[in-house]
Amino acid sequence: MPSQTDNPPLGPGFADLGFARVDTAREARQGLPEAVYGPGKRVEDISAIVTRLLSDNSGPVMVTRIEPERARAVATDVPGSTYDARARLLSWRPAKPLAYDLTVVTAGTADGPVAHEAAAVARLVGLRTVLVQDVGVAGIHRLAHVTGHLRSADAVIVVAGMEGALASVVGGLVSCPVIAVPTSTGYGAGLEGVTALLAMLSSCAAGLTVVNIDSGYGAAIAAFRLAHSRRSRP
Amino acid sequence: MPSQTDNPPLGPGFADLGFARVDTAREARQGLPEAVYGPGKRVEDISAIVTRLLSDNSGPVMVTRIEPERARAVATDVPGSTYDARARLLSWRPAKPLAYDLTVVTAGTADGPVAHEAAAVARLVGLRTVLVQDVGVAGIHRLAHVTGHLRSADAVIVVAGMEGALASVVGGLVSCPVIAVPTSTGYGAGLEGVTALLAMLSSCAAGLTVVNIDSGYGAAIAAFRLAHSRRSRP
Amino acid sequence: MPSQTDNPPLGPGFADLGFARVDTAREARQGLPEAVYGPGKRVEDISAIVTRLLSDNSGPVMVTRIEPERARAVATDVPGSTYDARARLLSWRPAKPLAYDLTVVTAGTADGPVAHEAAAVARLVGLRTVLVQDVGVAGIHRLAHVTGHLRSADAVIVVAGMEGALASVVGGLVSCPVIAVPTSTGYGAGLEGVTALLAMLSSCAAGLTVVNIDSGYGAAIAAFRLAHSRRSRP
Amino acid sequence: MPSQTDNPPLGPGFADLGFARVDTAREARQGLPEAVYGPGKRVEDISAIVTRLLSDNSGPVMVTRIEPERARAVATDVPGSTYDARARLLSWRPAKPLAYDLTVVTAGTADGPVAHEAAAVARLVGLRTVLVQDVGVAGIHRLAHVTGHLRSADAVIVVAGMEGALASVVGGLVSCPVIAVPTSTGYGAGLEGVTALLAMLSSCAAGLTVVNIDSGYGAAIAAFRLAHSRRSRP
Amino acid sequence: MPSQTDNPPLGPGFADLGFARVDTAREARQGLPEAVYGPGKRVEDISAIVTRLLSDNSGPVMVTRIEPERARAVATDVPGSTYDARARLLSWRPAKPLAYDLTVVTAGTADGPVAHEAAAVARLVGLRTVLVQDVGVAGIHRLAHVTGHLRSADAVIVVAGMEGALASVVGGLVSCPVIAVPTSTGYGAGLEGVTALLAMLSSCAAGLTVVNIDSGYGAAIAAFRLAHSRRSRP
Amino acid sequence: MPSQTDNPPLGPGFADLGFARVDTAREARQGLPEAVYGPGKRVEDISAIVTRLLSDNSGPVMVTRIEPERARAVATDVPGSTYDARARLLSWRPAKPLAYDLTVVTAGTADGPVAHEAAAVARLVGLRTVLVQDVGVAGIHRLAHVTGHLRSADAVIVVAGMEGALASVVGGLVSCPVIAVPTSTGYGAGLEGVTALLAMLSSCAAGLTVVNIDSGYGAAIAAFRLAHSRRSRP
Amino acid sequence: MPSQTDNPPLGPGFADLGFARVDTAREARQGLPEAVYGPGKRVEDISAIVTRLLSDNSGPVMVTRIEPERARAVATDVPGSTYDARARLLSWRPAKPLAYDLTVVTAGTADGPVAHEAAAVARLVGLRTVLVQDVGVAGIHRLAHVTGHLRSADAVIVVAGMEGALASVVGGLVSCPVIAVPTSTGYGAGLEGVTALLAMLSSCAAGLTVVNIDSGYGAAIAAFRLAHSRRSRP
Amino acid sequence: MPSQTDNPPLGPGFADLGFARVDTAREARQGLPEAVYGPGKRVEDISAIVTRLLSDNSGPVMVTRIEPERARAVATDVPGSTYDARARLLSWRPAKPLAYDLTVVTAGTADGPVAHEAAAVARLVGLRTVLVQDVGVAGIHRLAHVTGHLRSADAVIVVAGMEGALASVVGGLVSCPVIAVPTSTGYGAGLEGVTALLAMLSSCAAGLTVVNIDSGYGAAIAAFRLAHSRRSRP
Repeated sequence: MPSQTDNPPLGPGFADLGFARVDTAREARQGLPEAVYGPGKRVEDISAIVTRLLSDNSGPVMVTRIEPERARAVATDVPGSTYDARARLLSWRPAKPLAYDLTVVTAGTADGPVAHEAAAVARLVGLRTVLVQDVGVAGIHRLAHVTGHLRSADAVIVVAGMEGALASVVGGLVSCPVIAVPTSTGYGAGLEGVTALLAMLSSCAAGLTVVNIDSGYGAAIAAFRLAHSRRSRP
Repeated sequence: MPSQTDNPPLGPGFADLGFARVDTAREARQGLPEAVYGPGKRVEDISAIVTRLLSDNSGPVMVTRIEPERARAVATDVPGSTYDARARLLSWRPAKPLAYDLTVVTAGTADGPVAHEAAAVARLVGLRTVLVQDVGVAGIHRLAHVTGHLRSADAVIVVAGMEGALASVVGGLVSCPVIAVPTSTGYGAGLEGVTALLAMLSSCAAGLTVVNIDSGYGAAIAAFRLAHSRRSRP
Repeated sequence: MPSQTDNPPLGPGFADLGFARVDTAREARQGLPEAVYGPGKRVEDISAIVTRLLSDNSGPVMVTRIEPERARAVATDVPGSTYDARARLLSWRPAKPLAYDLTVVTAGTADGPVAHEAAAVARLVGLRTVLVQDVGVAGIHRLAHVTGHLRSADAVIVVAGMEGALASVVGGLVSCPVIAVPTSTGYGAGLEGVTALLAMLSSCAAGLTVVNIDSGYGAAIAAFRLAHSRRSRP
Repeated sequence: MPSQTDNPPLGPGFADLGFARVDTAREARQGLPEAVYGPGKRVEDISAIVTRLLSDNSGPVMVTRIEPERARAVATDVPGSTYDARARLLSWRPAKPLAYDLTVVTAGTADGPVAHEAAAVARLVGLRTVLVQDVGVAGIHRLAHVTGHLRSADAVIVVAGMEGALASVVGGLVSCPVIAVPTSTGYGAGLEGVTALLAMLSSCAAGLTVVNIDSGYGAAIAAFRLAHSRRSRP
Repeated sequence: MPSQTDNPPLGPGFADLGFARVDTAREARQGLPEAVYGPGKRVEDISAIVTRLLSDNSGPVMVTRIEPERARAVATDVPGSTYDARARLLSWRPAKPLAYDLTVVTAGTADGPVAHEAAAVARLVGLRTVLVQDVGVAGIHRLAHVTGHLRSADAVIVVAGMEGALASVVGGLVSCPVIAVPTSTGYGAGLEGVTALLAMLSSCAAGLTVVNIDSGYGAAIAAFRLAHSRRSRP
Repeated sequence: MPSQTDNPPLGPGFADLGFARVDTAREARQGLPEAVYGPGKRVEDISAIVTRLLSDNSGPVMVTRIEPERARAVATDVPGSTYDARARLLSWRPAKPLAYDLTVVTAGTADGPVAHEAAAVARLVGLRTVLVQDVGVAGIHRLAHVTGHLRSADAVIVVAGMEGALASVVGGLVSCPVIAVPTSTGYGAGLEGVTALLAMLSSCAAGLTVVNIDSGYGAAIAAFRLAHSRRSRP
Repeated sequence: MPSQTDNPPLGPGFADLGFARVDTAREARQGLPEAVYGPGKRVEDISAIVTRLLSDNSGPVMVTRIEPERARAVATDVPGSTYDARARLLSWRPAKPLAYDLTVVTAGTADGPVAHEAAAVARLVGLRTVLVQDVGVAGIHRLAHVTGHLRSADAVIVVAGMEGALASVVGGLVSCPVIAVPTSTGYGAGLEGVTALLAMLSSCAAGLTVVNIDSGYGAAIAAFRLAHSRRSRP
Repeated sequence: MPSQTDNPPLGPGFADLGFARVDTAREARQGLPEAVYGPGKRVEDISAIVTRLLSDNSGPVMVTRIEPERARAVATDVPGSTYDARARLLSWRPAKPLAYDLTVVTAGTADGPVAHEAAAVARLVGLRTVLVQDVGVAGIHRLAHVTGHLRSADAVIVVAGMEGALASVVGGLVSCPVIAVPTSTGYGAGLEGVTALLAMLSSCAAGLTVVNIDSGYGAAIAAFRLAHSRRSRP
């Protein structure tokens, strides 16, 4: 792959920290620096990776799913951060806003943390983001009052657990891209989000796409790909 | 159980045909003769069971999931039958109508066979039944035009495959009992109806109940229990 | 859906609390205010939702699956509550009794918490409820002594884990609606309630309906739909 | 294992037919010659194995799950056989009867083929076997009339599909060994017998044991082990 | 939803054919007429639906997964069709081309039918589509020679069965939207496409989105949403 | 069932403690008092049940899976108990020994707790029990040295986790009944004991029977049924 | 990857046949030409691929899982082939023998087809291969008589379905590499080979490795990697 | 098995510690003493087993998955140990180095603990081991810079979670044996490592072999079998 002369990653394209090979070419290749997944990493390792990402790139850097205490420790090591506790997102150097409107809707209040992650990541990478919560189909008239937000968006992220029916309903109402995020809310037959995942993939609304369970981050990056590719094309 | 003196089944309460013990006490106990599940049974065995059920009971007798050719053979053996090809239901002696309104709705045309079974069984056992097809949430405005049928019903049966979202939407709109039937339509992540089943059980609409995959028969009998218990109570 | 002139929800039909859109039209639409699922919600959010539900509706308000300590905190915020520790139910303003008899039976003592939730919710919404515990099929003669409670009921809720066989036995004995609740009791092949769930859905007793694993609340609301629809019909 | 001087298999203990190593020591070791599983084997291979088993042992030889046409071909090759079409069992040289009473009960008529296999194998290996069909729990009064057969047995085999509840009920009634055979009858949530299997393993009736789905043969051999070990002990 | 005055679907927005409610408002709402899923429908029903869709809309109409013989019969009923045998797609009235470049890549030759469906649907709805086959990671140098097609695309659809690894590799190379389609090719641990599905959802390449197993159609419509929303925005 | 005049349970046959219906007829019916499953029960409830079981029966009474601290509290309430910490079994009034030899074998040291439960329960109910640990097939020569214990037994219980292969090997060596207990030891593909369970059910050794995962208690009671039925027959 | 100057694939390294990109560099890279998986491919496509593989490589070429009739058609197109019906393998140009001894053992006769595929592929690529059939653990003394073949081998492939226990037993006896192939033989709880797969992965015998269900081909190529890497190292 | 005169295990070949039968013949049979799996064992039991293994063998002895505190306690009991905290491995008496080069590669930093276990065990048993971390396919150019380590190895262990795609890519690049270790890293659709496991087994790269989820130990022993068999052959 790096054999083509016009490809961005020249030279190794990564920084070898021993325990990690930081992909410093990702920003050139995909428009965003590599993100750091927080769980299981030591504070000093996160700080080292973030420091390197900040120095080798110019765009936003983020640590996802990091709890307040560890976030504070990293923030002390690497100045200039912002922490969003509801999204569990620690970030540096937000991107310049893009002319791209994203609406994030949730089915219930329990889907909040995942939706906050999606919205916080989306804003960090430059998307104009509206978050609309708790419009699930058990009281579908609530959805009618937010169709403006849905129809005016460039893309919609639907965050829903349990049976995930909101994704199908929204998918049938709007014409723009819809990214569905199943959540692990609910119990029993919800199977920790697997039921919502399977339901969204089986949706009768054509052209819906789906990301991993609870992956607010993944949905936001999928939206960024949409915005980025529009911008970067002549 | 038969030890209580006021219980209907006195004596053995069944007919021993050797290969089968026909539960002749079921009508007295539950208001309907035993039904015969067609697949895997020989024509002569079906005919023998039906003959016995007709002689020992006074209500409707039915054979479910029986294909036209075998249905014709049984119909020749046991006169007086009606065959509904879409429902694959062979039946005798329909019940007197009850003052009970049932609406059966489907999400898509592929759910038709299961919905026809539900409607045909429901009508046979005396329920006033309306069948509304193809109002799935991918075009949810179609549902708005049938809410009259939903709101005026004593009970609603929702038949849906794929992600089964229609059950949740209907469950949130009406106040009457809702019986959801997942169907094995769709492919891939639909997992032969398991996804719709799990989704309906995880529904955010409170008080929804669910029967087995493709069980139009089961849903109709559940509705009969509702009608029967209403009638039989002072 | 709200476009039909005779539909109850006029105006938005919800209260926007920012983090939640409380469905204030649910009582008009379905006969009961929205219920609050306790887990994962902050005390102040629960209190705010409950306060709004009490002010915008006239019927019973409840928080399900809330542990004693958090229940006490909410009870301090919102006066007039009752707390049932076995059912983990915090509630306000019980409904007027309906002429509807519900019997809740359990297979074993371990099914107690789910059955208590079902019974407490059912009583709160106005059903006359009898709770019969520990009549599982391993000692089926115990069931014979409670058939009076089963046969005199308008509906029966069967709560059972492990293999869930009690649901089939009860389903074959009574003619009224039977709502089966699988529980996550047991271990190993019980698969956290999935086995009981699948078994109940596959029951040889016709017309059984099933709700989600451990959902005493769901079963009680399903029973309320039965009672409510009977009452509300001419 | 063959290193102990008093162990039956002396010498190789098998016949090498190239495509198969026939375990000719099994009769000495376990009281019965090896059985031949029919599916997937060529007629000439079955005939060769059976011929060898007949010559190297003195007890009953059987081919299981063999359809009529192939059974006829093998019967032509190897004289002296009996074919039971309902059980799909081809056999030679039935064992002398043992003083051991086995009752095989089924939940429904669809369980017949598996129950016939169990009964036919049991009789071939010398057990006195009664087959009681169609006493499932949907009409549990039928069971009351066969408790004599259950209580007088040395062991009971319960054959049931769907939710398999009959196994638990029988397990709670009798004190003798109960061997449960789940069957792949039913549809949808029955998951081809997996639901019955899991339900039987999770049974609330203590001391139930379970064999593979549809394995009438396995249940009969389990019963033979009971009879054989009783007989062979002083 | 139809209560907002500026929403496209005025009046019922569907055609009631009895067995089906054709969503005639979908083109106005989402830019494309409803598509017809072929399996399980009768020829005359397909013809009736297609005729209605052609008359009530102006854009492309299609029947998916229809085999040659039935396609011929429908084509006779409704003139003007084109049939693509590799894609099993019968269509009428292709859309005007959009300035949108889509690249469809497959991992192996067995993924061909799904990729052909994706490409044929994409071209029908107006996307400029390149199909690149058989560049799976077992010989990853093949991919290096098509990175031009990947990097110049507005969106990429990756079609792969077995372990689906191609999706992750492509997802890491390009910055545009990537839609992954798992296929049911392979055997054993591939679990009929479920393994590829789960693997794609768990991809380490950020921002990948996934559609249902074998759903070339779903992927193409997801791509259409991207193109359509870009075009329709100021 | 209790309608037959020669059946042991006369009168109700249970003690109603409110929260539990103690099956006081079980000893008459099946040879052993009901056992108490410890988890999830309160100390005072356990004590009340045990007290009743001791007074209404004459045989051994046991509480399974009870940890030391709670066991001590119950032992204080109800004198005369013995506690086996490795088996987590609290018991009263051991049965008189039966002339029945049981061998319990384990595949590895991690299977110890389940095997200890099996052995402790078996001894309590009167079986002469030998426990042979750690003879798994990874070092199969270890098994050769205990074949004496296997061949001299009336029945063998095989306790094994991971792939459970020991059950098949033992099943092929002995002629007596073999009861296999899968355990939840191991990790990953062992799936918490499900793999061993499925493997034991699929065993190539004919006539093996299986109980629930980790159910040392269930295996011991299955063995008791064997011993009891032998003793109780003329 | 192709960017390193000493890597074998120079130039494109594949032949673009339109419907397929034949990996002509595989032989240089991995010691063997690409193999052709037969199912789902048209005869003319297979012939075209094989022709190209023969011309661009010097080693053995094979088509796996091809039935006699289609094999004959390909053999007519491309001369010089050999067809092994038991292995369903069509091949050209066998490799020169390597000094490497492989033993393939099976648990039962039903595992034959998979074992024949493994042996035929292994021989084609140059391994000295012995096939030992039907030594499953239900009669484990049979295994004792083939330990010579096991202990003298450079590697052993164990082919087993049902519970797959033979893999663990062999894994504990020999010190050489053991490659386990689960097969889809058996029924019910065998879950089409998934049980054997999980059991082999959970084996108590350390250092066992596993390939896909029924993949005799995969096991043979894994063995070739062992032989090839030994030969190719100084 | 021990009946052949030239087999290593003479006499019992194990040490009976009561709670464990230590397989003291394993070193003679397979080249390495038995390893001790740490979880669930008491410190004194581990110390006793290790002491016996050290006295009855001459090669390396190890305790796997043991946490620092318990490791310290065992180290106090049995002198001469080394503890590797990242690998959670406590060991004694490392083997003499073999002329065998192993490369362990990981997809991400979260795979570190499993890879460290693989590397530490491999080094203990004498393999020359290089550990290359964090070269997953999301930034596949990182892999290009380590192909030297891959191509010069005698065998490669690939450690990867999530979708496990790195195994397929590496499998297609090198000709030596590749042992894939799925890890339980990731969340949601990763299903605790099951997705990576299934994906690796379904890999399009021929001849890949797979071990249990998270089993760095198993992979290292599989590599030892390769090295050992090469060394031990003439």
